[in-house]
Amino acid sequence: MAVNLAPPDADRLRPVAGVSLGVAAAGIRKADRPDLLLMVLGENTQVAGLFTRNRFCAAPVQIARRHLEHSDPIRALLVNTGNANAGTGERGLADARQTCAETAHLLGLVPQQVLPFSTGVIMEALPVDRICSGLPHCVAALGASNWLAAAQAIMTTDTVPKASSRAIEIDGETVTITGIAKGAGMIHPDMATMLAFVATDANLPRALLQEALRYAGERSFNAITVDGDTSTNDAFMVMATGRSRAGEMIDASGPAFLQFRDALTQVAVELAQAIVRDGEGATKFIAVRVEGGATQAECRLVGFAIAHSPLVKTAFFACDPNLGRILAAIGYAGVADLEVGRVDLYLDEVLVARGGARHTEYREADGKRVMQRSEITVRVVLNRGTEQATVWTCDLSHDYVRINADYRT
Amino acid sequence: MAVNLAPPDADRLRPVAGVSLGVAAAGIRKADRPDLLLMVLGENTQVAGLFTRNRFCAAPVQIARRHLEHSDPIRALLVNTGNANAGTGERGLADARQTCAETAHLLGLVPQQVLPFSTGVIMEALPVDRICSGLPHCVAALGASNWLAAAQAIMTTDTVPKASSRAIEIDGETVTITGIAKGAGMIHPDMATMLAFVATDANLPRALLQEALRYAGERSFNAITVDGDTSTNDAFMVMATGRSRAGEMIDASGPAFLQFRDALTQVAVELAQAIVRDGEGATKFIAVRVEGGATQAECRLVGFAIAHSPLVKTAFFACDPNLGRILAAIGYAGVADLEVGRVDLYLDEVLVARGGARHTEYREADGKRVMQRSEITVRVVLNRGTEQATVWTCDLSHDYVRINADYRT
Repeated sequence: MAVNLAPPDADRLRPVAGVSLGVAAAGIRKADRPDLLLMVLGENTQVAGLFTRNRFCAAPVQIARRHLEHSDPIRALLVNTGNANAGTGERGLADARQTCAETAHLLGLVPQQVLPFSTGVIMEALPVDRICSGLPHCVAALGASNWLAAAQAIMTTDTVPKASSRAIEIDGETVTITGIAKGAGMIHPDMATMLAFVATDANLPRALLQEALRYAGERSFNAITVDGDTSTNDAFMVMATGRSRAGEMIDASGPAFLQFRDALTQVAVELAQAIVRDGEGATKFIAVRVEGGATQAECRLVGFAIAHSPLVKTAFFACDPNLGRILAAIGYAGVADLEVGRVDLYLDEVLVARGGARHTEYREADGKRVMQRSEITVRVVLNRGTEQATVWTCDLSHDYVRINADYRT
Repeated sequence: MAVNLAPPDADRLRPVAGVSLGVAAAGIRKADRPDLLLMVLGENTQVAGLFTRNRFCAAPVQIARRHLEHSDPIRALLVNTGNANAGTGERGLADARQTCAETAHLLGLVPQQVLPFSTGVIMEALPVDRICSGLPHCVAALGASNWLAAAQAIMTTDTVPKASSRAIEIDGETVTITGIAKGAGMIHPDMATMLAFVATDANLPRALLQEALRYAGERSFNAITVDGDTSTNDAFMVMATGRSRAGEMIDASGPAFLQFRDALTQVAVELAQAIVRDGEGATKFIAVRVEGGATQAECRLVGFAIAHSPLVKTAFFACDPNLGRILAAIGYAGVADLEVGRVDLYLDEVLVARGGARHTEYREADGKRVMQRSEITVRVVLNRGTEQATVWTCDLSHDYVRINADYRT
């Protein structure tokens, strides 16, 4: 059960001018469920992406990177679930290229104008035939209002579709940002990948879009963890169609860029948090906020050490205020010159440790009370600088093991 | 249930001349179970130690480090379970000092000749009174043949006591090495720590003993992981009494040192593997051997990425040859210039992936057959150098979560 995460309301997912979406059930792994999504982009759409840093990056990621560098503008994204096309060598590259070629053929494009994305089982050959057979159904279904269907089509073992939409005013005109995502971590034996696709009608050059994407990605998808496993296929894409009537192109010097960047970040944070809320076996949503660091990087190190610790995560599952585990994680996070005698630790409003030792007024009953909540903030104050960072994670439950130990068949 | 790990046979644990051991039930956390161990060392014993790198290192670790630097020779080690004396600030340091002072008083030493060790719940005050009340019982029980009782006294949620003993011939004379350990990782909500104590009657200077300890530690306790959590109290100690009749002091230039170092490493590896075999919820013992690396460090990076991955570990628990997860872990291990197209992957005798992709002759039935075994070797060949490293781990089972989510009470 996802933690405090309702399915998106289709009426609240605003269409983005210049973007149409179509889904199909191509039978890639299972019959009769949507598993193929085609997104078609209008002319002059700018596309930017952040991809997995995994050296074993999947064939579609390699092809998508190359196509983004190509001079022809990107006009379509093709996403399949059920097969990740990773660990598939040269054949995988050829397979990904073939799905791009078929998409291009149907849409009157060249193959380099199509970006492929795959999620699913690793080290098995992509069923190209089934994908190509499904493609005409996607084309036939294309429409501007299919965002919820698109969010459902990219689900694997996600229990709730994930989408977010926002409209902001820039220069008195509306700019729309709508996105979908799937998670969570390497969520299932054969369903490995985080994917997020966000479209906007904002009008801005690609370099600036890439800058906004990096900013938003760092504060959203790169600030979450379910199990610390980095998938071979992760991707966060933003497409800007430029169709908003917000007039002038957004440039780097004006306030409009910051407005756009912050709205994009809000959408990305909402999607990223949805992935954690729907993390495998999650029963709690945990924010780890690390303050008073010398650098943002060290705040992230400490945050992720806590968020990755299986012992901390099982303690949250058990509602057990066994908070020494958090101190231990801070200690091994890798901040070489950390003075532990200055560290304070809060659990929501409760001061647990002060100056690196149990606070004299801390009572276990207070910790216990906080641990019962479904949303908890761990706040660590390093008291050695002014930087801060927040990461989000979930607890580690019986169901995590059950889900991941299930046979793939 | 520990994986292929029988309790040690008391008759096979050779006494070490110059070392006597006594245990007591001091009621530190639970009544009527041995929880206090005193080891008394003869004159001229050399002592070397490796301690946790956790910045939140516990009060006893801080005191032990200081006492080791003191000019008075170490003559006793005091170990308690049930309370880690970590996250306890200044009071914790004073408490650790007081237990050393009381031990010194009983034995006619100065406090700096005693090393304190604690394992158990973090962030609670050490019950110094109970420890001091138990000490005379330890003294009364001192004997050279109490190694099994000692191994039992330092257990927390270990299910099997861990000990290893070995005799080697140096210059025609016997040198004995006997050690005990407890684990595993931060094994239980309140039972956090890996401790290992090895004694030998070898005669060698402290600097050389420290060198042998580092060598052995790198290849044993620093090559295992259960859950990736580094405890606040980890310690690996070696005591050399010099009582062996192997004559001359072992020096760095001769073959005797290598002989001793390798025997010490064997004892340490056996103890370290015992900790993994008895890891929380373990049902499988997994060796990850990474070969063909450019450096030993990168082999270890890859080995630990695999050994830490919750997804890899749950796949082993499920006997599911979902081996793409291993490729993914190799990919995110952090070897920046790794060419994944050169990587081969074996599961015991089965070649799974060759050149970064699924081997054409690999059949899932073969992977499945290997995954049924209780001891499995994952072999990764990076094909970029001649270095190698091995790390050991266990699987991640339902019981890991159950054990760690139990309330402490």
